[in-house]
Amino acid sequence: MINSSLSKYLLSIDNLRNLIRYQGAPKVSKETVAEHSFFVTAYTLKLHDYYDFDLEKAMKMAILHDFAESYISDVPHPIKKKFPLLEEQLNKAEYEVNCELINKEFAENIEEFNNCSTVEGIIVALADILSVISYSKYEIELGNSHYMKDVYNKTCKRISEIVQLAKPYLRNKYINLDILKEIDIFMTENYIN
Amino acid sequence: MINSSLSKYLLSIDNLRNLIRYQGAPKVSKETVAEHSFFVTAYTLKLHDYYDFDLEKAMKMAILHDFAESYISDVPHPIKKKFPLLEEQLNKAEYEVNCELINKEFAENIEEFNNCSTVEGIIVALADILSVISYSKYEIELGNSHYMKDVYNKTCKRISEIVQLAKPYLRNKYINLDILKEIDIFMTENYIN
Amino acid sequence: MINSSLSKYLLSIDNLRNLIRYQGAPKVSKETVAEHSFFVTAYTLKLHDYYDFDLEKAMKMAILHDFAESYISDVPHPIKKKFPLLEEQLNKAEYEVNCELINKEFAENIEEFNNCSTVEGIIVALADILSVISYSKYEIELGNSHYMKDVYNKTCKRISEIVQLAKPYLRNKYINLDILKEIDIFMTENYIN
Amino acid sequence: MINSSLSKYLLSIDNLRNLIRYQGAPKVSKETVAEHSFFVTAYTLKLHDYYDFDLEKAMKMAILHDFAESYISDVPHPIKKKFPLLEEQLNKAEYEVNCELINKEFAENIEEFNNCSTVEGIIVALADILSVISYSKYEIELGNSHYMKDVYNKTCKRISEIVQLAKPYLRNKYINLDILKEIDIFMTENYIN
Amino acid sequence: MINSSLSKYLLSIDNLRNLIRYQGAPKVSKETVAEHSFFVTAYTLKLHDYYDFDLEKAMKMAILHDFAESYISDVPHPIKKKFPLLEEQLNKAEYEVNCELINKEFAENIEEFNNCSTVEGIIVALADILSVISYSKYEIELGNSHYMKDVYNKTCKRISEIVQLAKPYLRNKYINLDILKEIDIFMTENYIN
Amino acid sequence: MINSSLSKYLLSIDNLRNLIRYQGAPKVSKETVAEHSFFVTAYTLKLHDYYDFDLEKAMKMAILHDFAESYISDVPHPIKKKFPLLEEQLNKAEYEVNCELINKEFAENIEEFNNCSTVEGIIVALADILSVISYSKYEIELGNSHYMKDVYNKTCKRISEIVQLAKPYLRNKYINLDILKEIDIFMTENYIN
Repeated sequence: MINSSLSKYLLSIDNLRNLIRYQGAPKVSKETVAEHSFFVTAYTLKLHDYYDFDLEKAMKMAILHDFAESYISDVPHPIKKKFPLLEEQLNKAEYEVNCELINKEFAENIEEFNNCSTVEGIIVALADILSVISYSKYEIELGNSHYMKDVYNKTCKRISEIVQLAKPYLRNKYINLDILKEIDIFMTENYIN
Repeated sequence: MINSSLSKYLLSIDNLRNLIRYQGAPKVSKETVAEHSFFVTAYTLKLHDYYDFDLEKAMKMAILHDFAESYISDVPHPIKKKFPLLEEQLNKAEYEVNCELINKEFAENIEEFNNCSTVEGIIVALADILSVISYSKYEIELGNSHYMKDVYNKTCKRISEIVQLAKPYLRNKYINLDILKEIDIFMTENYIN
Repeated sequence: MINSSLSKYLLSIDNLRNLIRYQGAPKVSKETVAEHSFFVTAYTLKLHDYYDFDLEKAMKMAILHDFAESYISDVPHPIKKKFPLLEEQLNKAEYEVNCELINKEFAENIEEFNNCSTVEGIIVALADILSVISYSKYEIELGNSHYMKDVYNKTCKRISEIVQLAKPYLRNKYINLDILKEIDIFMTENYIN
Repeated sequence: MINSSLSKYLLSIDNLRNLIRYQGAPKVSKETVAEHSFFVTAYTLKLHDYYDFDLEKAMKMAILHDFAESYISDVPHPIKKKFPLLEEQLNKAEYEVNCELINKEFAENIEEFNNCSTVEGIIVALADILSVISYSKYEIELGNSHYMKDVYNKTCKRISEIVQLAKPYLRNKYINLDILKEIDIFMTENYIN
Repeated sequence: MINSSLSKYLLSIDNLRNLIRYQGAPKVSKETVAEHSFFVTAYTLKLHDYYDFDLEKAMKMAILHDFAESYISDVPHPIKKKFPLLEEQLNKAEYEVNCELINKEFAENIEEFNNCSTVEGIIVALADILSVISYSKYEIELGNSHYMKDVYNKTCKRISEIVQLAKPYLRNKYINLDILKEIDIFMTENYIN
Repeated sequence: MINSSLSKYLLSIDNLRNLIRYQGAPKVSKETVAEHSFFVTAYTLKLHDYYDFDLEKAMKMAILHDFAESYISDVPHPIKKKFPLLEEQLNKAEYEVNCELINKEFAENIEEFNNCSTVEGIIVALADILSVISYSKYEIELGNSHYMKDVYNKTCKRISEIVQLAKPYLRNKYINLDILKEIDIFMTENYIN
């Protein structure tokens, strides 16, 4: 059960179409939090081919994993690292917003995602980072040669860590899957037409 | 299992950020198929509070229900009605694209959605139409006084038909839920801040 | 005589400002069907310097050559090739819309353009493809390094075919005109300032 | 014959996709000079149903009537009225640019348009003002309630003057055509869907 | 002296063109922090006609009053009110960023602005709120009928408080100036053309 | 004292958010005159670290240096050079608009800026050209590889002339400052994140 009434929920969710990701970064195109949440959920669905996890739970986490941003907005990562007390307060606010407007179980699921502490948390984190990759590929192909290459490079480092965390959950059939190689193929392939 | 490889799937899905809905309509803002798919899935999740259905199946239908558009694009409804042979060929193409790139089960699920022939098909259709409502509300509030009011009015007629189809699946607790009234509240309420 | 009343005609035409070309393609800028139709007509005018044809007939074809798109939208080329019955139905719909809202003569002129079956049809087809070239140059210069290079390369192949078809209609004075070389100069020259 | 080489012409024309009309005005959407030139030409074609004039000449005027703007840009009307010597210099520059890059005949045709001194000049001026009407209708329907209503009201005054000038050229069949009434219908009708 | 080197300063400042104000709000147009800072400074200059204050100090405050946002982004006001410990940490981060990258004097000036504790702080706060008014007027005129009317109404309440604080600093000549009335005239007047 | 009333001033200034710089140039992003004026003023503030000049006077010039454009718009430089009588009339109009709506002193200050005839005029001209550099860097990094590289190269030539003019006003401490080298560092450094 989601605590918000249908009308309240529709209003909150609608805000996610206004939130632009990578605030403050030079961008050719824009990605809204709504679009990003679509990609994270659609990727989670595909990852279920390779990994063994509770798909329903993971899709519920994925679709609303940035829900609290419609209330709190998104403070850049470097500032959070520089001011750990600020980060702590931001995490508290996120937890409380998720508790109040969705429910306690969801708020805890988001902590699993933030901490990669369950297989579903890991998978959604992997899908989340894949979405950063696909947006940075998109920007790079549109010409954004500097900023997004930085983002892409940082992301590639982080993705191998999460792929490592996810390894124990690979289905037998895919025990030798080299997911990073598949991503490499994606990065160098062109758009369909 | 999704037939496309991970890299092929990522490329196909990525196209949905380029597709703008309501092509040919005067619009203040834009809604991509990616954003729309997010809303349909997030609404499906909330509808599970009220209706009894297989949530995992419904979310899988919702997140990819417009997948084939990345290949076929979207021919306006009035033209389909005027040229039924054209509509028939478009439906065939959609089924084949879904079969080939996702899988046969998914292609059939999309037919359940197109025909409202199962509870999950009905729920995703309801979520789909709710997304038309929320976008038209958004446009109306931004000033788009003519075109989107037309869309909104037509949609309101269709929504009560689908709500009727969905009625048998209401959970006991919500047997008296007036979902149209909740939507009315949403329509007249303002954005959170 | 155009069959639509003035008000109906104005409404139909106005729709062409909402239609974005290359739906589904990653783009830095946007080209509307209205803009494209301007370029096709302005190029047709210049081609009259080199080729001998009925300018009035060609300009009338050029300015409205995508008129039916405001009703039917544009299904991507690869899908039409894959589903020939679909393509057939789309062509029928286009012919009927043009007949009904413009007139039978115009609908037939558009078939001359689609089939390159008259000199005016060839010239407008050449102007149409020049417009793809100039938009892809524009996109490439703005940074769109992948998708539009593909479009550009495919287009360059097709343009030499059409130039070949147009050859018999070159004015004596321009019998040795190397139009592809002129296009090459355009491609490498920079914008005026 | 157009004086510019094909490559030079393509470059000059291409600039018209960058020029936004109504610089300095609050706008919901944007209209490029390329789009505007499309509308003026497409309207000229329709006006040929009602008025007797040289269609080829008028379409050639219409399609390039704002060509010089790609070099000179557009100084607002009130400033031209306030500084007549400035307006004089701007007109001279326009004439010279048109002479040099298109040809002398075209430069003189544009003066016919600026002065409404021939039937083709009048018709293109009527089409030009119809384009202001259709863009202001578009903006008003998108919500632009203040600025564009002003533009629309001023335009309506001017349009009846030009309709008066055009009256002697009405075809017999349309001698009683009330073009302003047709425009009124257009203004109150909604977009097709 | 500004602590950042010229190149570092140029990079930090440049970020302000990417930051969109009113993140999460439905908007027809966009206002960047760079644009907002322009308006606040230009209004400060005009307010010097009416109020007696150190113009150089006030302009220096105004032009960089949102500088820290390029590092910290902007958490919505209601969340700050709900989580006072979060607000405290955000203020600390702002002070430190301003100290480190501009200088201590500037960081303290920004506190004068945040607390309206000096005449220059009050004047820049008044200019800041005038900028909210002018953007909301702009949005309302473009059709944004709901959200921005809310913003406008809340702002009008706050502006009379600040006008009250500023009263002691009115120049003799303007002792009876009704600044709220001037703003009313602005709100109902249309754009120049 | 600014001659315009507060409401008139607010209306005039507001127009600067609608004016897009580099009209007619292919652009990935847009820079409004409001944003540009922000950068020129913020750069002027930083230049005060290195050069000795009247900061208040220079900031007043900088913030409104393009004020007259909201009335006159901006005729491209090459046309002004080709038609000197036109340029003369444009300068006259600018002077009169500045006189009437701001004041005579400001109109004369803008002539100091146009002619680099005082230290403040030189500094604002330097800040103005730095703003062209930072926008062209921004565009180049977003992929605009052709047009903006041209602009950038032309600008680099002009900047060394102005840096030469400004040399006598360097503060002792910075007598050996190589400002062009600092700009080089800026050009090759990436955006903060």
